[in-house]
Amino acid sequence: MPHIDLPDAPGILAGMMFRPETAKPLNDLAEVLLRGESTLTRGERETIAAYVSKLNSCSFCHNSHATFAALQLDGGWELFDQVMDDPDAAPITPKLRALLGIAALVQQSGTAVTPQSVEAARAAGATDVEIHDTVLIAAAFCMFNRYVDGLGTVALPTREAYEPMGHQIVEMGYAASTPSLPG
Amino acid sequence: MPHIDLPDAPGILAGMMFRPETAKPLNDLAEVLLRGESTLTRGERETIAAYVSKLNSCSFCHNSHATFAALQLDGGWELFDQVMDDPDAAPITPKLRALLGIAALVQQSGTAVTPQSVEAARAAGATDVEIHDTVLIAAAFCMFNRYVDGLGTVALPTREAYEPMGHQIVEMGYAASTPSLPG
Repeated sequence: MPHIDLPDAPGILAGMMFRPETAKPLNDLAEVLLRGESTLTRGERETIAAYVSKLNSCSFCHNSHATFAALQLDGGWELFDQVMDDPDAAPITPKLRALLGIAALVQQSGTAVTPQSVEAARAAGATDVEIHDTVLIAAAFCMFNRYVDGLGTVALPTREAYEPMGHQIVEMGYAASTPSLPG
Repeated sequence: MPHIDLPDAPGILAGMMFRPETAKPLNDLAEVLLRGESTLTRGERETIAAYVSKLNSCSFCHNSHATFAALQLDGGWELFDQVMDDPDAAPITPKLRALLGIAALVQQSGTAVTPQSVEAARAAGATDVEIHDTVLIAAAFCMFNRYVDGLGTVALPTREAYEPMGHQIVEMGYAASTPSLPG
Protein backbone atom coordinates (compact mmCIF):
# COMPACT_ATOMS: atom_id res chain seq x y z
CA MET A 1 0.00 0.00 0.00
CA PRO A 2 1.41 3.42 -0.89
CA HIS A 3 2.83 5.44 2.03
CA ILE A 4 1.17 8.65 0.79
CA ASP A 5 -2.10 9.39 -0.98
CA LEU A 6 -1.16 8.55 -4.58
CA PRO A 7 -3.34 8.20 -7.68
CA ASP A 8 -4.49 4.64 -8.36
CA ALA A 9 -1.78 3.48 -10.78
CA PRO A 10 1.01 0.89 -10.58
CA GLY A 11 4.63 1.61 -9.70
CA ILE A 12 6.31 4.76 -10.91
CA LEU A 13 3.17 5.80 -12.82
CA ALA A 14 1.56 6.68 -9.47
CA GLY A 15 4.49 8.91 -8.47
CA MET A 16 4.54 10.54 -11.90
CA MET A 17 0.81 11.29 -11.81
CA PHE A 18 1.19 12.69 -8.28
CA ARG A 19 4.05 15.02 -9.27
CA PRO A 20 4.19 15.78 -13.01
CA GLU A 21 6.90 18.42 -12.39
CA THR A 22 9.40 15.70 -11.48
CA ALA A 23 7.96 13.15 -13.93
CA LYS A 24 9.19 15.17 -16.91
CA PRO A 25 12.96 15.07 -16.21
CA LEU A 26 12.65 11.44 -15.03
CA ASN A 27 11.04 10.40 -18.32
CA ASP A 28 13.46 12.56 -20.32
CA LEU A 29 16.36 10.77 -18.61
CA ALA A 30 14.92 7.31 -19.31
CA GLU A 31 14.26 8.27 -22.92
CA VAL A 32 17.81 9.45 -23.69
CA LEU A 33 19.49 6.64 -21.73
CA LEU A 34 17.36 3.69 -22.85
CA ARG A 35 16.08 4.77 -26.26
CA GLY A 36 18.30 7.63 -27.47
CA GLU A 37 21.04 7.31 -30.07
CA SER A 38 23.54 4.68 -28.89
CA THR A 39 25.76 1.85 -30.10
CA LEU A 40 24.09 -0.31 -27.42
CA THR A 41 20.78 -1.72 -28.61
CA ARG A 42 17.57 -0.80 -26.81
CA GLY A 43 17.25 -4.44 -25.79
CA GLU A 44 20.75 -4.41 -24.25
CA ARG A 45 20.08 -1.20 -22.34
CA GLU A 46 16.73 -2.43 -21.00
CA THR A 47 18.48 -5.66 -19.95
CA ILE A 48 20.95 -3.62 -17.85
CA ALA A 49 18.02 -1.69 -16.33
CA ALA A 50 16.09 -4.86 -15.51
CA TYR A 51 19.22 -6.53 -14.08
CA VAL A 52 19.95 -3.65 -11.66
CA SER A 53 16.27 -3.58 -10.67
CA LYS A 54 16.51 -7.29 -9.90
CA LEU A 55 19.59 -6.70 -7.73
CA ASN A 56 17.63 -3.98 -5.91
CA SER A 57 14.63 -6.35 -5.54
CA CYS A 58 12.27 -3.82 -7.14
CA SER A 59 9.44 -5.91 -8.54
CA PHE A 60 7.70 -3.20 -10.60
CA CYS A 61 10.89 -1.89 -12.24
CA HIS A 62 12.31 -5.36 -12.81
CA ASN A 63 9.20 -6.77 -14.44
CA SER A 64 8.41 -3.70 -16.50
CA HIS A 65 11.94 -3.34 -17.88
CA ALA A 66 12.18 -7.12 -18.29
CA THR A 67 9.18 -6.82 -20.60
CA PHE A 68 10.70 -3.86 -22.47
CA ALA A 69 13.94 -5.88 -22.84
CA ALA A 70 12.30 -9.11 -23.97
CA LEU A 71 10.23 -7.24 -26.58
CA GLN A 72 13.38 -5.69 -28.05
CA LEU A 73 16.00 -8.44 -27.68
CA ASP A 74 16.46 -10.77 -30.65
CA GLY A 75 16.39 -13.70 -28.23
CA GLY A 76 13.21 -12.51 -26.51
CA TRP A 77 12.15 -13.84 -23.11
CA GLU A 78 14.25 -17.00 -23.43
CA LEU A 79 17.50 -15.05 -23.75
CA PHE A 80 16.41 -12.49 -21.14
CA ASP A 81 15.72 -15.20 -18.56
CA GLN A 82 19.09 -16.85 -19.26
CA VAL A 83 20.85 -13.52 -18.64
CA MET A 84 19.05 -12.99 -15.33
CA ASP A 85 19.72 -16.57 -14.20
CA ASP A 86 23.44 -16.47 -14.98
CA PRO A 87 24.96 -13.60 -16.98
CA ASP A 88 28.28 -15.46 -17.15
CA ALA A 89 26.73 -18.47 -18.90
CA ALA A 90 24.12 -16.73 -21.07
CA PRO A 91 24.76 -16.54 -24.84
CA ILE A 92 25.37 -12.78 -24.94
CA THR A 93 28.34 -10.80 -26.27
CA PRO A 94 31.42 -10.52 -24.03
CA LYS A 95 30.83 -6.74 -24.16
CA LEU A 96 27.34 -6.93 -22.67
CA ARG A 97 28.57 -9.43 -20.08
CA ALA A 98 31.33 -7.02 -18.98
CA LEU A 99 28.91 -4.08 -18.91
CA LEU A 100 26.51 -6.07 -16.70
CA GLY A 101 29.49 -6.65 -14.40
CA ILE A 102 30.06 -2.89 -14.13
CA ALA A 103 26.33 -2.34 -13.54
CA ALA A 104 26.38 -4.82 -10.65
CA LEU A 105 29.28 -2.92 -9.05
CA VAL A 106 27.48 0.43 -9.45
CA GLN A 107 24.43 -1.12 -7.77
CA GLN A 108 26.59 -1.71 -4.67
CA SER A 109 28.30 1.69 -4.73
CA GLY A 110 29.98 4.03 -7.20
CA THR A 111 33.24 3.42 -5.38
CA ALA A 112 32.93 -0.35 -6.03
CA VAL A 113 33.75 0.19 -9.73
CA THR A 114 37.39 -0.75 -10.28
CA PRO A 115 39.88 0.10 -13.04
CA GLN A 116 40.00 -3.67 -13.68
CA SER A 117 36.25 -3.92 -14.32
CA VAL A 118 36.44 -0.98 -16.74
CA GLU A 119 39.50 -2.44 -18.43
CA ALA A 120 37.68 -5.76 -18.88
CA ALA A 121 34.80 -3.96 -20.60
CA ARG A 122 37.18 -2.07 -22.85
CA ALA A 123 39.00 -5.32 -23.73
CA ALA A 124 35.60 -6.79 -24.69
CA GLY A 125 35.05 -3.91 -27.11
CA ALA A 126 33.14 -1.36 -25.02
CA THR A 127 33.67 2.31 -25.85
CA ASP A 128 33.97 5.08 -23.26
CA VAL A 129 30.45 6.26 -24.11
CA GLU A 130 29.09 2.73 -23.61
CA ILE A 131 30.86 2.49 -20.24
CA HIS A 132 29.58 5.94 -19.25
CA ASP A 133 26.03 5.08 -20.22
CA THR A 134 26.17 1.75 -18.38
CA VAL A 135 27.30 3.50 -15.19
CA LEU A 136 24.51 6.06 -15.54
CA ILE A 137 21.81 3.49 -16.40
CA ALA A 138 22.79 1.45 -13.33
CA ALA A 139 22.91 4.58 -11.15
CA ALA A 140 19.57 5.80 -12.51
CA PHE A 141 17.88 2.51 -11.64
CA CYS A 142 19.25 2.80 -8.10
CA MET A 143 17.15 5.99 -8.10
CA PHE A 144 14.05 4.67 -9.90
CA ASN A 145 13.97 1.52 -7.72
CA ARG A 146 14.20 3.56 -4.48
CA TYR A 147 11.58 6.01 -5.73
CA VAL A 148 9.11 3.25 -6.61
CA ASP A 149 9.59 1.26 -3.39
CA GLY A 150 10.23 4.25 -1.11
CA LEU A 151 6.70 5.47 -1.92
CA GLY A 152 5.33 1.97 -1.34
CA THR A 153 3.77 1.83 -4.81
CA VAL A 154 1.96 -1.25 -6.03
CA ALA A 155 3.41 -3.74 -8.54
CA LEU A 156 1.34 -5.69 -11.06
CA PRO A 157 0.43 -9.30 -10.18
CA THR A 158 2.02 -11.17 -13.11
CA ARG A 159 4.67 -10.73 -15.77
CA GLU A 160 1.95 -10.85 -18.42
CA ALA A 161 0.25 -7.84 -16.85
CA TYR A 162 3.19 -5.68 -18.00
CA GLU A 163 2.68 -6.52 -21.69
CA PRO A 164 0.36 -3.61 -22.62
CA MET A 165 2.73 -1.12 -20.96
CA GLY A 166 5.59 -2.82 -22.78
CA HIS A 167 4.05 -2.33 -26.19
CA GLN A 168 3.27 1.30 -25.38
CA ILE A 169 6.86 2.07 -24.29
CA VAL A 170 8.35 0.25 -27.30
CA GLU A 171 6.10 2.16 -29.69
CA MET A 172 5.77 5.58 -28.02
CA GLY A 173 8.76 5.91 -25.69
CA TYR A 174 9.06 7.22 -22.15
CA ALA A 175 8.41 10.91 -22.73
CA ALA A 176 4.88 10.04 -23.88
CA SER A 177 4.19 8.82 -20.31
CA THR A 178 4.70 12.25 -18.73
CA PRO A 179 1.36 13.50 -17.38
CA SER A 180 0.30 17.01 -18.33
CA LEU A 181 1.52 19.71 -15.98
CA PRO A 182 -1.26 21.35 -13.96
CA GLY A 183 -2.52 24.78 -14.97
CA MET B 1 41.59 9.19 -11.64
CA PRO B 2 38.60 8.89 -13.98
CA HIS B 3 37.92 5.40 -15.38
CA ILE B 4 37.23 6.79 -18.86
CA ASP B 5 38.66 9.71 -20.85
CA LEU B 6 36.66 12.60 -19.35
CA PRO B 7 37.11 16.36 -19.76
CA ASP B 8 39.25 17.95 -17.06
CA ALA B 9 36.55 19.07 -14.61
CA PRO B 10 35.63 18.03 -11.06
CA GLY B 11 32.91 15.56 -10.12
CA ILE B 12 29.66 15.46 -12.05
CA LEU B 13 30.77 18.39 -14.24
CA ALA B 14 33.16 16.01 -16.04
CA GLY B 15 30.35 13.53 -16.78
CA MET B 16 28.05 16.33 -17.92
CA MET B 17 30.65 17.78 -20.28
CA PHE B 18 31.33 14.28 -21.66
CA ARG B 19 27.66 13.58 -22.34
CA PRO B 20 25.51 16.75 -22.64
CA GLU B 21 22.53 14.64 -23.80
CA THR B 22 22.19 13.11 -20.33
CA ALA B 23 23.33 16.27 -18.52
CA LYS B 24 20.13 18.07 -19.49
CA PRO B 25 17.57 15.81 -17.76
CA LEU B 26 19.94 15.40 -14.77
CA ASN B 27 20.15 19.17 -14.28
CA ASP B 28 16.42 19.59 -14.94
CA LEU B 29 15.73 17.04 -12.19
CA ALA B 30 18.07 18.78 -9.71
CA GLU B 31 16.51 22.14 -10.55
CA VAL B 32 12.91 21.10 -9.92
CA LEU B 33 13.71 19.00 -6.83
CA LEU B 34 16.15 21.33 -5.09
CA ARG B 35 15.12 24.80 -6.31
CA GLY B 36 11.60 24.50 -7.76
CA GLU B 37 8.44 25.63 -6.01
CA SER B 38 8.20 23.85 -2.64
CA THR B 39 7.18 24.33 0.98
CA LEU B 40 10.63 22.99 1.90
CA THR B 41 13.28 25.71 1.76
CA ARG B 42 16.18 25.39 -0.66
CA GLY B 43 18.49 25.11 2.34
CA GLU B 44 16.45 22.21 3.76
CA ARG B 45 16.42 20.36 0.43
CA GLU B 46 20.17 20.82 -0.09
CA THR B 47 20.70 19.55 3.47
CA ILE B 48 18.85 16.34 2.59
CA ALA B 49 20.96 16.00 -0.59
CA ALA B 50 24.23 16.56 1.31
CA TYR B 51 23.17 14.15 4.06
CA VAL B 52 22.43 11.29 1.64
CA SER B 53 25.70 12.01 -0.18
CA LYS B 54 27.52 11.73 3.16
CA LEU B 55 25.84 8.36 3.84
CA ASN B 56 26.99 7.24 0.37
CA SER B 57 30.54 8.54 1.09
CA CYS B 58 30.51 10.65 -2.09
CA SER B 59 32.99 13.44 -1.39
CA PHE B 60 32.22 15.65 -4.40
CA CYS B 61 28.44 15.53 -3.98
CA HIS B 62 28.61 15.88 -0.20
CA ASN B 63 30.89 18.90 -0.22
CA SER B 64 29.22 20.66 -3.13
CA HIS B 65 25.70 20.27 -1.73
CA ALA B 66 27.00 21.06 1.78
CA THR B 67 28.14 24.38 0.35
CA PHE B 68 24.82 24.97 -1.43
CA ALA B 69 23.02 24.15 1.87
CA ALA B 70 25.21 26.34 4.09
CA LEU B 71 24.82 29.29 1.71
CA GLN B 72 21.02 28.99 1.89
CA LEU B 73 20.36 27.89 5.49
CA ASP B 74 19.68 30.65 8.02
CA GLY B 75 22.11 28.95 10.40
CA GLY B 76 24.86 28.65 7.74
CA TRP B 77 27.78 26.26 8.14
CA GLU B 78 27.40 26.07 11.93
CA LEU B 79 23.89 24.65 11.69
CA PHE B 80 24.79 22.48 8.71
CA ASP B 81 27.68 20.85 10.59
CA GLN B 82 25.47 20.22 13.62
CA VAL B 83 22.93 18.43 11.40
CA MET B 84 25.58 16.21 9.83
CA ASP B 85 27.14 15.41 13.23
CA ASP B 86 23.86 14.47 14.88
CA PRO B 87 20.52 15.16 13.19
CA ASP B 88 18.68 14.10 16.36
CA ALA B 89 20.42 16.77 18.50
CA ALA B 90 20.70 19.59 15.94
CA PRO B 91 18.40 22.62 16.38
CA ILE B 92 16.22 21.93 13.33
CA THR B 93 12.47 21.54 13.03
CA PRO B 94 10.97 18.17 13.98
CA LYS B 95 9.69 18.01 10.39
CA LEU B 96 13.17 18.25 8.83
CA ARG B 97 14.47 15.75 11.39
CA ALA B 98 11.78 13.24 10.41
CA LEU B 99 12.39 13.83 6.69
CA LEU B 100 16.13 13.20 7.18
CA GLY B 101 15.12 9.93 8.85
CA ILE B 102 13.14 8.91 5.74
CA ALA B 103 16.06 9.96 3.51
CA ALA B 104 18.42 7.72 5.49
CA LEU B 105 16.06 4.76 4.97
CA VAL B 106 15.80 5.45 1.21
CA GLN B 107 19.61 5.52 1.07
CA GLN B 108 19.59 1.90 2.29
CA SER B 109 16.73 0.72 0.06
CA GLY B 110 13.29 1.86 -1.04
CA THR B 111 11.85 -1.11 0.82
CA ALA B 112 13.44 0.13 4.07
CA VAL B 113 10.90 2.97 4.28
CA THR B 114 8.23 2.00 6.82
CA PRO B 115 4.70 3.23 7.44
CA GLN B 116 5.98 4.28 10.90
CA SER B 117 8.71 6.52 9.46
CA VAL B 118 6.17 8.17 7.16
CA GLU B 119 3.66 8.54 9.99
CA ALA B 120 6.34 10.20 12.14
CA ALA B 121 7.02 12.74 9.40
CA ARG B 122 3.32 13.42 9.00
CA ALA B 123 2.93 13.86 12.77
CA ALA B 124 5.78 16.40 12.62
CA GLY B 125 3.83 18.39 10.04
CA ALA B 126 5.15 17.03 6.72
CA THR B 127 2.74 17.03 3.78
CA ASP B 128 2.47 14.22 1.24
CA VAL B 129 4.31 16.36 -1.34
CA GLU B 130 7.14 16.99 1.13
CA ILE B 131 7.39 13.26 1.86
CA HIS B 132 7.31 12.47 -1.88
CA ASP B 133 10.00 15.01 -2.63
CA THR B 134 12.20 13.76 0.23
CA VAL B 135 11.98 10.20 -1.09
CA LEU B 136 12.86 11.38 -4.59
CA ILE B 137 15.71 13.69 -3.46
CA ALA B 138 17.24 10.82 -1.46
CA ALA B 139 16.75 8.40 -4.37
CA ALA B 140 18.19 10.91 -6.86
CA PHE B 141 21.35 11.33 -4.78
CA CYS B 142 21.75 7.55 -4.71
CA MET B 143 21.98 8.03 -8.50
CA PHE B 144 24.16 11.17 -8.59
CA ASN B 145 26.58 9.71 -6.01
CA ARG B 146 26.96 6.45 -7.99
CA TYR B 147 27.36 8.37 -11.26
CA VAL B 148 30.11 10.61 -9.84
CA ASP B 149 32.06 7.82 -8.13
CA GLY B 150 31.28 5.11 -10.69
CA LEU B 151 33.11 7.19 -13.31
CA GLY B 152 35.98 7.76 -10.86
CA THR B 153 35.68 11.55 -11.14
CA VAL B 154 37.90 13.85 -9.11
CA ALA B 155 36.72 15.78 -6.04
CA LEU B 156 38.05 19.21 -5.01
CA PRO B 157 40.74 19.30 -2.30
CA THR B 158 39.01 21.47 0.32
CA ARG B 159 35.56 22.62 1.37
CA GLU B 160 36.53 26.19 0.48
CA ALA B 161 37.23 25.13 -3.10
CA TYR B 162 33.48 24.56 -3.59
CA GLU B 163 32.56 28.18 -2.76
CA PRO B 164 32.67 29.63 -6.31
CA MET B 165 30.50 26.76 -7.59
CA GLY B 166 28.20 27.37 -4.63
CA HIS B 167 27.62 31.00 -5.47
CA GLN B 168 27.00 30.12 -9.10
CA ILE B 169 24.38 27.48 -8.27
CA VAL B 170 22.65 29.73 -5.73
CA GLU B 171 22.47 32.59 -8.23
CA MET B 172 21.98 30.77 -11.55
CA GLY B 173 20.57 27.34 -10.69
CA TYR B 174 21.36 23.90 -12.03
CA ALA B 175 19.99 24.19 -15.54
CA ALA B 176 22.59 26.89 -16.27
CA SER B 177 25.28 24.20 -15.81
CA THR B 178 24.08 22.10 -18.76
CA PRO B 179 26.72 22.17 -21.52
CA SER B 180 25.57 23.03 -25.02
CA LEU B 181 24.49 20.04 -27.07
CA PRO B 182 26.81 19.25 -29.97
CA GLY B 183 25.86 20.24 -33.50
